[in-house]
Amino acid sequence: MPSSTPPLRTALLQSSGRPGSVAANLKALDEAAARAADAGAGLLVCPEMFLTGYAIGEDVHRLAESADGDAADAVADIAVRHGLAVVYGYPERDDDKVYNSAQLIDSTGTRLANYRKTHLFGGFEQDSFTPGEVPVVQAELGGLRIGLMICYDVEFPENVRAHALAGTDLLLVPTAQMHPFQFVAEAVVPVRAWENQMYVAYVNRTGPEGEFEFVGLSCLASPDGATRLRAGRGEELLVGEVDGALLRASRETNPYLRDRRPGLYASLV
Amino acid sequence: MPSSTPPLRTALLQSSGRPGSVAANLKALDEAAARAADAGAGLLVCPEMFLTGYAIGEDVHRLAESADGDAADAVADIAVRHGLAVVYGYPERDDDKVYNSAQLIDSTGTRLANYRKTHLFGGFEQDSFTPGEVPVVQAELGGLRIGLMICYDVEFPENVRAHALAGTDLLLVPTAQMHPFQFVAEAVVPVRAWENQMYVAYVNRTGPEGEFEFVGLSCLASPDGATRLRAGRGEELLVGEVDGALLRASRETNPYLRDRRPGLYASLV
Repeated sequence: MPSSTPPLRTALLQSSGRPGSVAANLKALDEAAARAADAGAGLLVCPEMFLTGYAIGEDVHRLAESADGDAADAVADIAVRHGLAVVYGYPERDDDKVYNSAQLIDSTGTRLANYRKTHLFGGFEQDSFTPGEVPVVQAELGGLRIGLMICYDVEFPENVRAHALAGTDLLLVPTAQMHPFQFVAEAVVPVRAWENQMYVAYVNRTGPEGEFEFVGLSCLASPDGATRLRAGRGEELLVGEVDGALLRASRETNPYLRDRRPGLYASLV
Repeated sequence: MPSSTPPLRTALLQSSGRPGSVAANLKALDEAAARAADAGAGLLVCPEMFLTGYAIGEDVHRLAESADGDAADAVADIAVRHGLAVVYGYPERDDDKVYNSAQLIDSTGTRLANYRKTHLFGGFEQDSFTPGEVPVVQAELGGLRIGLMICYDVEFPENVRAHALAGTDLLLVPTAQMHPFQFVAEAVVPVRAWENQMYVAYVNRTGPEGEFEFVGLSCLASPDGATRLRAGRGEELLVGEVDGALLRASRETNPYLRDRRPGLYASLV
């Protein structure tokens, strides 16, 4: 991380869009990107499965596309037109498999990184998706090392630690966090940022959808234990800064990665 | 864990005792044990280095005793007289080495478990102590599997996960938690209980001592994300229940240990 890099303004789009309609969700993304760009953001993060909706049953398979499919082209067009990077969740088709994925496309329209959720939550996900097999997916953006993860993944401390050991500065976590698991949004996410000395952007869906009630509460947590942004329960676009200087200072004060004793953790693997 | 075991009433002694005087701290322990027993407690947990004080400089070495030394006998006598188990922190001598240790002695006066802190915090500890090499130390008490850990140890998620994988139901954490690290007491400890589906009793020192300002905020956190007990900044004796039925129900709802993917965590060791 170059020491002179200015903070990366990061926008969190808390919304469920319109489940089942890719066209409507691309339109919502276009509008959010315009607002985020107006607020000076260089990066816009959307929730898990934002492109299609989450609780869409078998439509997950009908609407799944490859990582370089038509929807990816449409998102790239939005990113270029508004001059910011976009992370969005979507069902990814690869031959006969469908993954729960998140893709990062930069402001030139280049697909920088694609992550497939490794920890599938509950019956719906385990029935609908194939789990990913690559734990750490990263890209460089705005002088920061960006990591991608999805929802339930962040609840496993091992998973986030693997990112810290790989140098992730800002972990982006599209999510579909539902009642009664608010504790994850409120408590677990800020602790992940602290114990791993990174920023974590956790971006949730809102309101009822099928059998689920999404709780919002999206946040941007920083490595000093602060919660820089915190949404309520409704639709919201939040913008905050990810500051490399704060990261460096916090890592000096909190030497968790240096004080680890990997030789004592053999039972974890 | 037998399904019929009644909850274990657990007392947390938040106090710094009198640094430098083992006799005064044994007297304080005796008084606290009487009060805890009156409140129906079967277990009393004291802070890190309660026997001698924490910020006592080179007296750490002068006052260090073996795990079966005179002070252990005195604690065993207190445990027997009041009919409860005691966990206390102390500097442990073993030949020419001194460890930062915590020992569990049951109500019959039997030394059930002795743990040597594996993650030493900052210059004072790293200069004064030899780090322990055994990550998971456990004992059975009141139908529960008890684990021991000390202060900084609990800030490393790998460490607590190792206890969860070894079946710890109640993790006892004597601590000397100082300003400005309140985030650990307030946020990290409840998250450890949640993500590992165990109870965590975190028992701190209070007030100024040498160069340190201990922050109190001792707590008993349960696996459902609740903080069952929370102390303020001053001296306090708190008593709460550790309930095996709640543990079982919470583990059914939150299958973190079943949903782990150890094959993806290789970078951690």
